[in-house]
Amino acid sequence: MKKFVNDPQQFVPEMLKGLALANPDTLKYVPEYNLIMRADAPRADKVSIVQGSGSGHEPAHVMAVGPGMLDAACPGDVFAAPPMDYVYETTKLLNSPKGVLLLVNNYTGDRMAFDMAQELSLADGVNVKTLFIDDDVAVKDSTWTVGRRGVAGNFFVIKAVGAAAEAGADLDELMRIGEKVVSVTRSMGLALTACTPPAKGAPLFELGDDEIEIGVGIHGEPGRRRAKIVPANELVDILLEPVVADLPYVSGDRVALMVNGLGGTPISELYLVYGIAHEKLAAQGITVARSYVGEYCTSLDMAGASITLVKLDDEIEGLLAAPAEIGARIF
Amino acid sequence: MKKFVNDPQQFVPEMLKGLALANPDTLKYVPEYNLIMRADAPRADKVSIVQGSGSGHEPAHVMAVGPGMLDAACPGDVFAAPPMDYVYETTKLLNSPKGVLLLVNNYTGDRMAFDMAQELSLADGVNVKTLFIDDDVAVKDSTWTVGRRGVAGNFFVIKAVGAAAEAGADLDELMRIGEKVVSVTRSMGLALTACTPPAKGAPLFELGDDEIEIGVGIHGEPGRRRAKIVPANELVDILLEPVVADLPYVSGDRVALMVNGLGGTPISELYLVYGIAHEKLAAQGITVARSYVGEYCTSLDMAGASITLVKLDDEIEGLLAAPAEIGARIF
Repeated sequence: MKKFVNDPQQFVPEMLKGLALANPDTLKYVPEYNLIMRADAPRADKVSIVQGSGSGHEPAHVMAVGPGMLDAACPGDVFAAPPMDYVYETTKLLNSPKGVLLLVNNYTGDRMAFDMAQELSLADGVNVKTLFIDDDVAVKDSTWTVGRRGVAGNFFVIKAVGAAAEAGADLDELMRIGEKVVSVTRSMGLALTACTPPAKGAPLFELGDDEIEIGVGIHGEPGRRRAKIVPANELVDILLEPVVADLPYVSGDRVALMVNGLGGTPISELYLVYGIAHEKLAAQGITVARSYVGEYCTSLDMAGASITLVKLDDEIEGLLAAPAEIGARIF
Repeated sequence: MKKFVNDPQQFVPEMLKGLALANPDTLKYVPEYNLIMRADAPRADKVSIVQGSGSGHEPAHVMAVGPGMLDAACPGDVFAAPPMDYVYETTKLLNSPKGVLLLVNNYTGDRMAFDMAQELSLADGVNVKTLFIDDDVAVKDSTWTVGRRGVAGNFFVIKAVGAAAEAGADLDELMRIGEKVVSVTRSMGLALTACTPPAKGAPLFELGDDEIEIGVGIHGEPGRRRAKIVPANELVDILLEPVVADLPYVSGDRVALMVNGLGGTPISELYLVYGIAHEKLAAQGITVARSYVGEYCTSLDMAGASITLVKLDDEIEGLLAAPAEIGARIF
């Protein structure tokens, strides 16, 4: 394994420490709970938005903390749900008179941790609700889920409820908005290579020199099938067709189009994929009104990409266009 | 080779087309010259800032076009200087009454193209100057250079002269600022893996399973030496010590610290590296006043990272802090 890592057991804490050092005025790091929070959270005038998940998906979610986005993220170790008590302590630390909204991608381990933490927090009198995200159309039920997995579409939920929370929306209104975004968001990804968790020190699965995994999960879980590598035009069809067909997105729709890199794919290739997908959608009468190209939800160093569509209406488009700021800014 | 690519000869144009489609209101793509320019350029009230270079270093430089940054970028093919006539036509298209500033990383091919284009443009009456950037301390003279190579430190030159140009500085003042930033900026990188150019279809060089290339160039050029992989703390020393010693940066200095990913290294590892570097500098009495973590200047899909330091004074810090906006935004 060739990585920038010291003790693999300290990979997540050392990353979080670096993130906090890079954002001393805006982020606060609470090592006891792997917690990254806004320095000004919790605020009495807004619902606190919290996401938890395994690590290894950066910038999701610790680098998505900031104004108009998350108030806090409490990650677990690489590809492991955060411990229930981390979520519980985080919820208490983020407690606001307006309440706490927990965002969770749909994986069994994460659901268990968040369900238990919510129960304990409610018993403590915290006004807390939990929203589950399951945008991945690749498989129904999988290695780590009952139902569909939550992947990069999660970004749009954070962005929309983050903007609405900043504008003063209450907890029920945020649940409505979050569920609405989930209901119109669909994703699918493919892997060109496996990923290597620092503690394992070897690739999580084997792919041949000319093989790809279609519908791969963000923890390297199997997708729909293996296939031989084909030109980018066909790779885009392989991802876009099941996504479009699922909602379905139809002629006349306005959408947000995200091309998300899985960690090891350069942004040059992502823009090439974006251009192809944009034109294929246009040919079907689907207008891309907002574009997102880059890394949003990765799988460590996996080469590959996912495509996400969000069907827009005026409300969602306005929330996506609202200002936001995150720890992973490059300016 | 497993990449998102159709015809390798069309890799750059397809990427540029995707970039333009993702930024329809702000960027304009001129396919004849591989040119990405601001939709509102040239502006009569500001000097036009133009960077050229080979492709394969994205987001440098086509995704660094926007307010407060570049007015245009004219890339060549992957790892190839832009043809002289592309630079010449770009200079004419970007001609402003206030002049044109060409930014060039120090590689022999790029220098030749830009020197000739400048000569032709001057003969046409365009007020044009050229600034060369050579921040890489790894090697003096190299595969493609006389003198030092220009690498990720280039970002700070673009950011500073971009901000000053937006504020109305004239061409001589921009040259002064650019040269000043170059004079206080130093970088060095290392490769964990080679990179694979689409048209070659195979890695540019061979590295063993436990080998790294210290001081690697952004085109895969050899650096100072090969070594075995070591823990991140030592990797940071390997990069930071030569950089600090070169200017030198000394106790009491305020600096900008950039940890730049070379394309295949996840942002989690970059933040881990950032945290280590930040603390090592602090231990030497060097204060990190501005932080930059992410991909700025890559080498296709190469795993690896570089570290850049900029010694700050009030003028440079103010220019780096000025607002800017680029095509590769993730919001």
